[in-house]
Amino acid sequence: MSTREEFYTRIDKDALAPLWTRLKSLVPAEPTPVGIPYLWRYRDIRPHVLESATLISAMEAERRVLILENPSLRGLSQVSNTLYAGVQLLMPGEIAPAHRHTQSALRFILEGSGAYTAVDGEKTLMQRGDFVITPSWTWHHHGNDSSEPTIWLDGLDIPMVAFFNSTFREDHDRVEADVHRPLGDSPARYGQGLLPVGHVARSLNSPVFNYPYARTREALATIAAHDMPDAAHGHLMRYINPLDGGWAMPTIAPTIQLLPNGIETTPYRSTDAKVFVVVEGGGALHLGDQSLVFDESDIFVVPGWVSHHFSTTAETVLFAFSDRVVQEKIGIFREQR
Amino acid sequence: MSTREEFYTRIDKDALAPLWTRLKSLVPAEPTPVGIPYLWRYRDIRPHVLESATLISAMEAERRVLILENPSLRGLSQVSNTLYAGVQLLMPGEIAPAHRHTQSALRFILEGSGAYTAVDGEKTLMQRGDFVITPSWTWHHHGNDSSEPTIWLDGLDIPMVAFFNSTFREDHDRVEADVHRPLGDSPARYGQGLLPVGHVARSLNSPVFNYPYARTREALATIAAHDMPDAAHGHLMRYINPLDGGWAMPTIAPTIQLLPNGIETTPYRSTDAKVFVVVEGGGALHLGDQSLVFDESDIFVVPGWVSHHFSTTAETVLFAFSDRVVQEKIGIFREQR
Amino acid sequence: MSTREEFYTRIDKDALAPLWTRLKSLVPAEPTPVGIPYLWRYRDIRPHVLESATLISAMEAERRVLILENPSLRGLSQVSNTLYAGVQLLMPGEIAPAHRHTQSALRFILEGSGAYTAVDGEKTLMQRGDFVITPSWTWHHHGNDSSEPTIWLDGLDIPMVAFFNSTFREDHDRVEADVHRPLGDSPARYGQGLLPVGHVARSLNSPVFNYPYARTREALATIAAHDMPDAAHGHLMRYINPLDGGWAMPTIAPTIQLLPNGIETTPYRSTDAKVFVVVEGGGALHLGDQSLVFDESDIFVVPGWVSHHFSTTAETVLFAFSDRVVQEKIGIFREQR
Amino acid sequence: MSTREEFYTRIDKDALAPLWTRLKSLVPAEPTPVGIPYLWRYRDIRPHVLESATLISAMEAERRVLILENPSLRGLSQVSNTLYAGVQLLMPGEIAPAHRHTQSALRFILEGSGAYTAVDGEKTLMQRGDFVITPSWTWHHHGNDSSEPTIWLDGLDIPMVAFFNSTFREDHDRVEADVHRPLGDSPARYGQGLLPVGHVARSLNSPVFNYPYARTREALATIAAHDMPDAAHGHLMRYINPLDGGWAMPTIAPTIQLLPNGIETTPYRSTDAKVFVVVEGGGALHLGDQSLVFDESDIFVVPGWVSHHFSTTAETVLFAFSDRVVQEKIGIFREQR
Repeated sequence: MSTREEFYTRIDKDALAPLWTRLKSLVPAEPTPVGIPYLWRYRDIRPHVLESATLISAMEAERRVLILENPSLRGLSQVSNTLYAGVQLLMPGEIAPAHRHTQSALRFILEGSGAYTAVDGEKTLMQRGDFVITPSWTWHHHGNDSSEPTIWLDGLDIPMVAFFNSTFREDHDRVEADVHRPLGDSPARYGQGLLPVGHVARSLNSPVFNYPYARTREALATIAAHDMPDAAHGHLMRYINPLDGGWAMPTIAPTIQLLPNGIETTPYRSTDAKVFVVVEGGGALHLGDQSLVFDESDIFVVPGWVSHHFSTTAETVLFAFSDRVVQEKIGIFREQR
Repeated sequence: MSTREEFYTRIDKDALAPLWTRLKSLVPAEPTPVGIPYLWRYRDIRPHVLESATLISAMEAERRVLILENPSLRGLSQVSNTLYAGVQLLMPGEIAPAHRHTQSALRFILEGSGAYTAVDGEKTLMQRGDFVITPSWTWHHHGNDSSEPTIWLDGLDIPMVAFFNSTFREDHDRVEADVHRPLGDSPARYGQGLLPVGHVARSLNSPVFNYPYARTREALATIAAHDMPDAAHGHLMRYINPLDGGWAMPTIAPTIQLLPNGIETTPYRSTDAKVFVVVEGGGALHLGDQSLVFDESDIFVVPGWVSHHFSTTAETVLFAFSDRVVQEKIGIFREQR
Repeated sequence: MSTREEFYTRIDKDALAPLWTRLKSLVPAEPTPVGIPYLWRYRDIRPHVLESATLISAMEAERRVLILENPSLRGLSQVSNTLYAGVQLLMPGEIAPAHRHTQSALRFILEGSGAYTAVDGEKTLMQRGDFVITPSWTWHHHGNDSSEPTIWLDGLDIPMVAFFNSTFREDHDRVEADVHRPLGDSPARYGQGLLPVGHVARSLNSPVFNYPYARTREALATIAAHDMPDAAHGHLMRYINPLDGGWAMPTIAPTIQLLPNGIETTPYRSTDAKVFVVVEGGGALHLGDQSLVFDESDIFVVPGWVSHHFSTTAETVLFAFSDRVVQEKIGIFREQR
Repeated sequence: MSTREEFYTRIDKDALAPLWTRLKSLVPAEPTPVGIPYLWRYRDIRPHVLESATLISAMEAERRVLILENPSLRGLSQVSNTLYAGVQLLMPGEIAPAHRHTQSALRFILEGSGAYTAVDGEKTLMQRGDFVITPSWTWHHHGNDSSEPTIWLDGLDIPMVAFFNSTFREDHDRVEADVHRPLGDSPARYGQGLLPVGHVARSLNSPVFNYPYARTREALATIAAHDMPDAAHGHLMRYINPLDGGWAMPTIAPTIQLLPNGIETTPYRSTDAKVFVVVEGGGALHLGDQSLVFDESDIFVVPGWVSHHFSTTAETVLFAFSDRVVQEKIGIFREQR
């Protein structure tokens, strides 16, 4: 054993370790991607999702969700280094019972139009393309009063809140929490360019809890009809919190973008891993030699700092979410075209 | 002459004056209202407004506006201590030529539906009840391509900018400034719960330059259908700047409120003078022994720190603006129920 | 009487006036300075200030102050369009009794070293060059336990708060308000790069209520020893509120600047009128053909939008204050080199 | 194999997993502490630190640091779930060569008084008790021109930046980066209640890069002489960024607190793990049945959500750091008395 190794052994007993043998790996020159790029074809996963209803009820499952688990992070329930994604099914007549947790959640609706989520005493109906927020520590349950299954993508900050070790969860003593505000209340109160005089924020999440796709799509159409698309992003918008103009959620940065038909974007990478949903259209995601062809409702993940670009075979709308909002807040977000 | 007076005379030559003879008047115990409460009946002023078109063209007038001058501030072109208001007319085919100025302006549309304002390269069509912003130092002109007269209320911070002595104005070298963005661009880009990624504000005014009444009214209806009205304000909302959640303008605070039919509100006063427009309904403004009965499209002003309340004879919508935003920013706003 | 004039007469009865006859004067192309540049020589005003003690006591006067009244704004108690300045004297043993008002005040100490001001339950001793804040609506009184007269400059936002018509004043029922915190408390708590965990601001004014000249001067000296001076400003710093990094006061922007000996600065103008105190050194202020020679403790005012520059005959330190903070907040501040 | 298990196996091929088997562990009812409470006695680790100089030079090591590795997180180079801590030694005449990285670092000086750190072109001398910041992505090197060893505690956000996978590092092509600003420049420019007019932040870290202990200690003494200590925290202050009043660093929340002699604080826990340095005094940290006796210069860690309290045998000053700043920014910080 060398003198140095002998020293390392000795100090180990005092819970000490030399930095110099680890410095380059602890503080590498640039990021090594965590997780791999991966695409879940909706046509492949939809049957599994529907089959799950035959195996377990929403009530028993609490949340009947198939986790989209990054293939290189199996067992960790992660779609990326910091985020969780899953596909949730609610059958006609079912209720996913009320609970609350530190984690903030987003829902992006893939299928169905009659289910609701109830958050903090208010229901909202969920339709394809709607972006819905469940703020941290708000009671919420989901129900489906319609005659068709409803399927949506869940995005949560589970790994991030676990990393900071600040996870709290509470189950409601009833299946359904009280609903004391009418449908459409929050969108009216916070989502029309107005705010109640004297309103005090109760959360860092946006109080607009449903951003309906009809409005989002119309905004994209108006902008795309006139603007030149950005070379890397086409027409890229972010969902905002009207209380401060920041990202709609404090831990997850949601965006929507329109890529014109036939575009081939320029390579881009950023330090945030992004989960995409193909809302409309189709095309391919290109990463070095690899190409992932995507179609409507497919979901794919691009790890951080992986250069990628898009080509489209139809006018395409992509919803995406990442942890960019946190990286910006703590000053470590980088991007490169 | 007393010793003191002799002293005052002596120091006067050195541009000095005693504070103690003036202290109580300079720093009074509470505000004395500036201006008087006053109501302009739309049925009375509309004929004057229309007649003005026979006397002068929009082109010659630059802006064909009748100033709403507070009766106790005649000659000062002020509706209140800090703000200006006027009623502007644009006849079919007319253009009010392009200029820009430090002052920020709001337009609240009273009549007509085919005129436009063009601000910073973008037109918006103006319909009754729309709230439209012209930010400080942006080129703007107005035009009327329809076959009917258009009449709107102008609210500007002219006395305030004059007080701070920072007024600049420039006339465009053409009647119409370039229009290079399509109709609906700003509302799509900034007014749908989304913002372009990377957007940088060019002004402290909201980039949403038209807040259409249809959306505003629907929001009020949704809220009023369920909420108990506030005793003093009914259902009171403020127009916001989605970039920061603050008031839509840096110098003028615009609000909209719905008063249920038959309500009698509780007395209220605040340090900001408010100019109201009756968008819908009717009723009366009560100030001590005085009552001002109001009907649709009437405009009235309530000076600051004057206690007042409302009664209604129909479901009533009031638009209002004041300097509250500045008073809040500098920490001197007060209100009392 | 022309048709137009007849119309004007007619609408006058309805409290209306044509804009088009007033537009160019209401919204001029650029500011016309309000007030004139003026210098008060300390050697001239000091005898008057001291003499005032023979005419009235601090107790009787409430505040024994000679107002520095801009020669072109006589009778208005204004040093500029928006601000008030005065020179206050406190003789040994005197107390200026406790009151509070909406107005925020600054004190810049000219002479003496044993007087105190007590604000919100805390005293601070005032020495030459110290910059002291009295936040809006805080009880305050002044006392002089030393054996020498104390003289300071007062700067207040009296005209501004009057313009917004939000002046409130209350006299304390005792001469001296309670003092319940020790000397040095606020500077320790807020002025050393630290803040109490959980501190909630009670005002938009900085909680650091005394910025001692010793620290300020040392900072200037350190910077000036190395930095090239700015061509227009030398070494120009602003007093900040550590709670948000903004200006130390919400209505008055205080600065301190060091001009090296022998410098001739480049012309500069801005839309804020500035009141200067010569803390150290001497030189001249040049405005077009006019030059005002200044010496230690002289006070001078430069109205907004008046181009000016400095020359020095010694290393010079200038304290100044203006309404720039408000102009910035409402988006109308302009400057030009 | 049950039907459900067969299903799980089948969907596994499509990178899917059931949430319902993992929900309670993924989203637990409350945090399970990560890492254990642990104390490094300075008298034990100091000999190791000094011995390291005989084994490797600062130049070869790049940074000659012994990592304080939480005993239950061995091999991970972590003192807590999100942070790194180490003890660095610089011998007389040595230089730790220039590099930069995404990570922000703090230094808290334990021993020696002649070494410097050079950050972004400016040196600062480091003395016992000083708190020094190295902002993200700034060139920095350390040197020791004195005749005695210098030892300090390093705190970095290495695990956090690794979690977000945004680590970049660059080695300077010279051992010493250029120093182009004089000693004391940043403290003068940013740390005296003043800021340069027009200053634009280059980082989310405070520009005051050295908070000298002399000032910190004086502030604590002033406050402690008069205030009642908080039952749980004594006199607890946070180091701030004067540009915005927030925590001095965007990823690490540094505090300093004074505990009076003989105090026994009340139990407290919060979701952030805290690393403490005993700057002065001594006493014990109590956690349930466990007590860790501490003396001057000892370092200890308390994992998040572990209830603890203090008793002292002398007037005690504790420096501490945690990730509270990030937890607050993302809305998940909790504390409980």
